[in-house]
Amino acid sequence: MSQSMSPPPFPRRIGKRPSPFAETEYLMRLARVREELIPHGVDALLVTDPGNICYLSGYGAESSYVAQGLIVRLEGPPDLVVRRQDAPAGMWMAWMPNAHILDYPEDLIGNPHEDGLDFICRLLLDHRVRRLGVELDCLSASAQNRMQARYPELRLVDLSGLVMRLRLVKSRAEIEVMREAARITDHVLEMVPEFFRPGRSEAEVAADLTAELIRGLPGLPGDRPEPIPLAGGPRTGTSHVSWTDAEIKPGRHYNLKIGACRYRYSAALMRTVVVGQAPGRLERLHDAMVEGCEAALARVWPGRLVGDLARAFIETVERHGWWKDSRCGYPIGINWLETSCSIRADDSTQIAENMAFYLMLGMWVEEDFGAVLSETFVVTAGGPEVLGRTPRRLIRVPPG
Amino acid sequence: MSQSMSPPPFPRRIGKRPSPFAETEYLMRLARVREELIPHGVDALLVTDPGNICYLSGYGAESSYVAQGLIVRLEGPPDLVVRRQDAPAGMWMAWMPNAHILDYPEDLIGNPHEDGLDFICRLLLDHRVRRLGVELDCLSASAQNRMQARYPELRLVDLSGLVMRLRLVKSRAEIEVMREAARITDHVLEMVPEFFRPGRSEAEVAADLTAELIRGLPGLPGDRPEPIPLAGGPRTGTSHVSWTDAEIKPGRHYNLKIGACRYRYSAALMRTVVVGQAPGRLERLHDAMVEGCEAALARVWPGRLVGDLARAFIETVERHGWWKDSRCGYPIGINWLETSCSIRADDSTQIAENMAFYLMLGMWVEEDFGAVLSETFVVTAGGPEVLGRTPRRLIRVPPG
Repeated sequence: MSQSMSPPPFPRRIGKRPSPFAETEYLMRLARVREELIPHGVDALLVTDPGNICYLSGYGAESSYVAQGLIVRLEGPPDLVVRRQDAPAGMWMAWMPNAHILDYPEDLIGNPHEDGLDFICRLLLDHRVRRLGVELDCLSASAQNRMQARYPELRLVDLSGLVMRLRLVKSRAEIEVMREAARITDHVLEMVPEFFRPGRSEAEVAADLTAELIRGLPGLPGDRPEPIPLAGGPRTGTSHVSWTDAEIKPGRHYNLKIGACRYRYSAALMRTVVVGQAPGRLERLHDAMVEGCEAALARVWPGRLVGDLARAFIETVERHGWWKDSRCGYPIGINWLETSCSIRADDSTQIAENMAFYLMLGMWVEEDFGAVLSETFVVTAGGPEVLGRTPRRLIRVPPG
Repeated sequence: MSQSMSPPPFPRRIGKRPSPFAETEYLMRLARVREELIPHGVDALLVTDPGNICYLSGYGAESSYVAQGLIVRLEGPPDLVVRRQDAPAGMWMAWMPNAHILDYPEDLIGNPHEDGLDFICRLLLDHRVRRLGVELDCLSASAQNRMQARYPELRLVDLSGLVMRLRLVKSRAEIEVMREAARITDHVLEMVPEFFRPGRSEAEVAADLTAELIRGLPGLPGDRPEPIPLAGGPRTGTSHVSWTDAEIKPGRHYNLKIGACRYRYSAALMRTVVVGQAPGRLERLHDAMVEGCEAALARVWPGRLVGDLARAFIETVERHGWWKDSRCGYPIGINWLETSCSIRADDSTQIAENMAFYLMLGMWVEEDFGAVLSETFVVTAGGPEVLGRTPRRLIRVPPG
């Protein structure tokens, strides 16, 4: 089956990259995972969510389009299993000794008969794993079906969300990298009036914003950022779309979402940019959003419920005659969105110290009219620590 | 369950964005899908792969982190189902009349009891769909299990790969947008010597490259590009990793992969950048790669096998004492990687006119030594049309 001469084994001499997370921190994260695993009686957990893999190992290369996984057993460091081509990245990024970076042959890539998941399953069986925790929300149906058909000795136990829930409360080091990311985000937002000059194209603005998110601050470069949605003109009711080649024009406003990233941790902010005179309707909407945002932040307190924030926001904007049906945010950390809970009225998750949230107050009122505002914050004993310093105002750009 | 006052229904007055793909082209793509569906006896196909959704509808917003799908029935335009917040983007991007953009309530986002997939399943059942084609390689195991448990009347038939295979042969319009993307990619690579000046940081270089991929050429902006891997110094054996804050240094080389994007279609290129004097070993490796690349391109001819290209490359580099165990590329189009086949020695897919491939010749020889080279090409009756014009050479940057 091999396409070529066999490659020599890696001598595994590559160094580790500098990391803000100490080995003891990873050991603590692992210990918490294991504590959760015990009641489920599994022999191991196969982590396939790329954010969870990063959380427990530090590995964050862009390789999740092929089979990979982190095997957490009940003791010892976890094993990262990646294709051979990605093993050097594993050695460089993951905290574990190189003996715990396991690579499967390249022949399993693009192979219609078997892939890296078969390698992982055989490895697990060789290590006498029988009851296996899996993340079925981050495993394809094909993969699950194949595991069940080919490796029936492996009993799959769905533990989706187990690791994600532990990510909700951040460590001191995680909060610190999020603060760094927030400094970059603020810095980029300061440049907005310069970037959004009328006559430039939306694409030029997006190019500059993206560049600055990566360039970061002296000694503090940004990691690869999420793509920037930039919706202006008749598209301010539209979310998740990219720039066009349209010119920035006076009288238009633009919904902007950016988030610098450090070690995969994002600090996101949305602001509404107005070129020239803001229409009265936009001013009224935005005023209500700011008031709602402040009302929500005022409820951030350990012991309160996540849903309280959504209720505070929604009640405020409804009092002004607006409504918001989309959720008001979610936990944030690795890869921006964490799915452990949502800032929606009926969420009864208790707020605790060191949780980090993205309070997402975009209001897409009509298909062609909306505005955005958001904050990333960490919960402290005394209330929210809002990570960004960017004023909670429309960003005004002179008309010419 | 609702979190707020009910939003009014959208008046659906938003316009369509300019598109390089005519409605007739989408109708043709659909017709080919239906032809393939018939032997499977399904009532409908639920498309969940974001690239396939884009291929059949034009919709490409960054919304696939929540449930969404394109329902292709045996006649009529397909129905795009997205959350309400994304409906305006659907109306703007998808070719279908707005009545075929269906939105589910925001209350289904972050809802632990049901989500957009439940909405889709109920919709299908209401329309008397019983045998449903699905893409199990792009549906989570949780989603499949839930569909089977809650909607047993829906009989799922796995049609993974059906749409993807049809994407292999490109239309004239698809090839044209890929040529546009290639012009941008070439333009950005021309700036490499200026960007890689010694003393700048890798992050600054990545910032500039990313910005130019987005800025594009006059009247030809880039769509959001894939993140740029940039591996230099001791990490040239490493793939899929981002920049660091290390300085660009004479004597080092850098493996660079960039691909500009137009309407989600990528034209990718990898080149190896050398600052100052290239070590003899790198020169020898790269010479072998260039020779292998040319040998592979010489085999591109309708009727030959995709595997022939891999064999040509591998035989050439082995003659020079090197080896490559990773595959030599894959089809390219929407979202860069298409999974319909692989350029590996045992792939017996027949090459046909208007197929587009990414000939990926990265050689990660040792964990700390490698080099890269690639080409994006389209198959014509007379051989390959290589889309990029960038010379197949090391890109040399003066040492200071």
